[in-house]
Amino acid sequence: MTTRKLHLNAFLMGVGHHEAAWRHPRTDPSRLTDVRHYQQLARIAERGKLDSVFLADGLALWGNVRHNALGGLEPLTLLSALAVVTDHVGLIATVSTTYNEPYHVARKFASLDHISGGRAGWNIVTSAGEAEAHNFGIERPPHATRYARADEFLDVVTRLWDSWEDDAILRDRASGVYADTGKIHPLEHSGEHFQVRGPLNTSRPPQGHPLLVQAGSSEDGKEFAARHAEAVFTAQQTLGEGQDFYADLKSRLARYGRRHDELLVLPGISPIIGSTEREALRLEKELEDLIIPAYGLAQLSHMIGVELPESALDQPLPDIPVETEGAQSRRKLVVDLARREGLTVRGLLGRLAGGRGHRVVAGTPEQIADQLQEWFLNGAADGFNIMPPVLPGGLEHFVDHVVPELQLRGLFRTEYEGRTLRENYGLARPASRHDLPASEELDVVVAS
Amino acid sequence: MTTRKLHLNAFLMGVGHHEAAWRHPRTDPSRLTDVRHYQQLARIAERGKLDSVFLADGLALWGNVRHNALGGLEPLTLLSALAVVTDHVGLIATVSTTYNEPYHVARKFASLDHISGGRAGWNIVTSAGEAEAHNFGIERPPHATRYARADEFLDVVTRLWDSWEDDAILRDRASGVYADTGKIHPLEHSGEHFQVRGPLNTSRPPQGHPLLVQAGSSEDGKEFAARHAEAVFTAQQTLGEGQDFYADLKSRLARYGRRHDELLVLPGISPIIGSTEREALRLEKELEDLIIPAYGLAQLSHMIGVELPESALDQPLPDIPVETEGAQSRRKLVVDLARREGLTVRGLLGRLAGGRGHRVVAGTPEQIADQLQEWFLNGAADGFNIMPPVLPGGLEHFVDHVVPELQLRGLFRTEYEGRTLRENYGLARPASRHDLPASEELDVVVAS
Repeated sequence: MTTRKLHLNAFLMGVGHHEAAWRHPRTDPSRLTDVRHYQQLARIAERGKLDSVFLADGLALWGNVRHNALGGLEPLTLLSALAVVTDHVGLIATVSTTYNEPYHVARKFASLDHISGGRAGWNIVTSAGEAEAHNFGIERPPHATRYARADEFLDVVTRLWDSWEDDAILRDRASGVYADTGKIHPLEHSGEHFQVRGPLNTSRPPQGHPLLVQAGSSEDGKEFAARHAEAVFTAQQTLGEGQDFYADLKSRLARYGRRHDELLVLPGISPIIGSTEREALRLEKELEDLIIPAYGLAQLSHMIGVELPESALDQPLPDIPVETEGAQSRRKLVVDLARREGLTVRGLLGRLAGGRGHRVVAGTPEQIADQLQEWFLNGAADGFNIMPPVLPGGLEHFVDHVVPELQLRGLFRTEYEGRTLRENYGLARPASRHDLPASEELDVVVAS
Repeated sequence: MTTRKLHLNAFLMGVGHHEAAWRHPRTDPSRLTDVRHYQQLARIAERGKLDSVFLADGLALWGNVRHNALGGLEPLTLLSALAVVTDHVGLIATVSTTYNEPYHVARKFASLDHISGGRAGWNIVTSAGEAEAHNFGIERPPHATRYARADEFLDVVTRLWDSWEDDAILRDRASGVYADTGKIHPLEHSGEHFQVRGPLNTSRPPQGHPLLVQAGSSEDGKEFAARHAEAVFTAQQTLGEGQDFYADLKSRLARYGRRHDELLVLPGISPIIGSTEREALRLEKELEDLIIPAYGLAQLSHMIGVELPESALDQPLPDIPVETEGAQSRRKLVVDLARREGLTVRGLLGRLAGGRGHRVVAGTPEQIADQLQEWFLNGAADGFNIMPPVLPGGLEHFVDHVVPELQLRGLFRTEYEGRTLRENYGLARPASRHDLPASEELDVVVAS
């Protein structure tokens, strides 16, 4: 028994994370653009007392839609429809700092935070894809430029959230004074990437700042996370790698004046659950049999930056350089996985189809819980990003069978601690920088 | 009796359109950021069989928040929360073409259209305000530049909505073919303002194109409306002005190959409703007594582009030039109103406080219905943009007392005609330009 509790996020993706999920009889791919599908998933997550649900996003039609169920809904538009059918579960959406303006992003997350009563989270991405740049009329900026822009973007967004102090609104009907304008502050921001006068035209969000989430694992990405993020999603294949990443990331916090418990590390895991191990392995095999090799090859080529022909399927993975910029962390993971397990390209496709590089574990609820417990108690995780292979079934199985097992072991909550996402993640509500003594104002990004 | 039916849109604004609404005992200004308030309003509108609800927007903190209830929610984030508690009412949000990218806007409205089952509408604005430009790091572009950008923006957005043909999705599980990629088209758009490769990463919206709404009354604005808009919100004070505007706008349609019934003209009206005329006038007086002159003066100065001191309150409106670019249509309306009625500045503030230049009519339900009927039957309106002075009460009164009167007179529907916003507005669903013979493809913006 431990008093430390783990945190669980449900990563929602169409009808499942397995790339062949849409072909499996347990899913209904016609629900890809049906809001009721996502409402059902959010309700299941809340029934299981999960901390949050999360929607990934990209700004181009990625992958080959010939063989996968793509073309779904924009996350922020969707999340407020989930907010109004749930009471506790957090709502995290991916939004890019490279192809957006801070004023819009600050306002949309502030609005979602109001609508949800303090349950909004922002997964900050810098958009590594080349196709995305071409939908916005620019060449893809270099990695370092994207992160420099992201840094300034975060500075502006958090200052916009702070531009209304918590007690700015008076609503004094008798005197006709709605707000104390001395507590609503322009920014007059003028930086390398943005000029923003402010203030925001939405009042301060219930959480102060919606939760800041991040997932980049490059050197720039980890440093950005250490500076800004409060939760990090990450792909780690082995306990050793998970421990190394966890220790690395936590060790970076001190230089920004942050404590270890101010950032949660949540590795991804795709649990393939059966009531017996045999049943779990059968589901895994059914999904594997539905893989379209041409689709997997295209995905793999995208990940490793090298085109592979179908004739390579039954060969070992060729030598791949892993030291180029950008997506190198996922590339290294994929190459290491193939080497470590001596996989052919076809075998590697099978291992990647479930979670695009995230760990896939097939087994009974107890076996899944064992895996989560091992990483949680051995310095590799503060919780997990759960990526069900099929939806909604895979999430239901997790909530109905794995969550009770974790609760029995004292590893997971039986009731929500609070009403906001921050309360459930155990993270403090940031004070507005305007509430601090003037001498501390400059340090607030670090100190909050 | 007439077989032609009018169309009604409920313009939702905080706790009411009257600038002093938040001070009146019939409102609760603490609900400004409460999603349940807006859900209640949408349900009331649907109970009244109204065609749609509409949220205005701006990208800066406008007006003086010291004396008005500002700082509410971003419309698109809010509308999906209204979509899931209603079944028929249309959902229209304002989004600027000057401070956004077409890929984002196409995607968010496509998503809202999917979430609502075909009830999304976009009120297209070019953002005349100077404060908005300063939140996006640029100087405000000139009027003509904003409209040129808006034209290209519309071209790109409608082509993104068309980038997936209606029958592109096959979902053939057996063969593993999700979509016919021959029916998903890149744009390769390269224009003066935008380069967008496409295709969109959200499939074609249920309505084909979400409804296109517009409200500009300048020369550029009217020409833009004639080219693109399917419904136009407008401020007109007198029947004569309303008739002139209506005839002017409809006469412009032919040059774009459009019929008169392909664009609906909806003048704004703020109905102050009482069960007796005396009761209506009492409510009007109560609201007028709550006006803060300093607030009204600042709003008026913004509208007419001339600073007026408090000492001007009991003088006639000074001579104002009305021929400058941009906001001249609203400026002319305000100056004409003061001249026509011989108003002092204080008197003018009273006339503007209810609807910022839109028509305000106080009376019994029958008297309000008479006004609507007169404009509808005499070539000034295809319907109305209803702007209740206080919310939710003013909308409830309209739905419970004016709507039944309009129904009795055969002027308004008793049941929704269909499930989509287009069906209820009586507007056709645009075919994808890729479904047309190649020779017609270039004309599709005009012909749809």
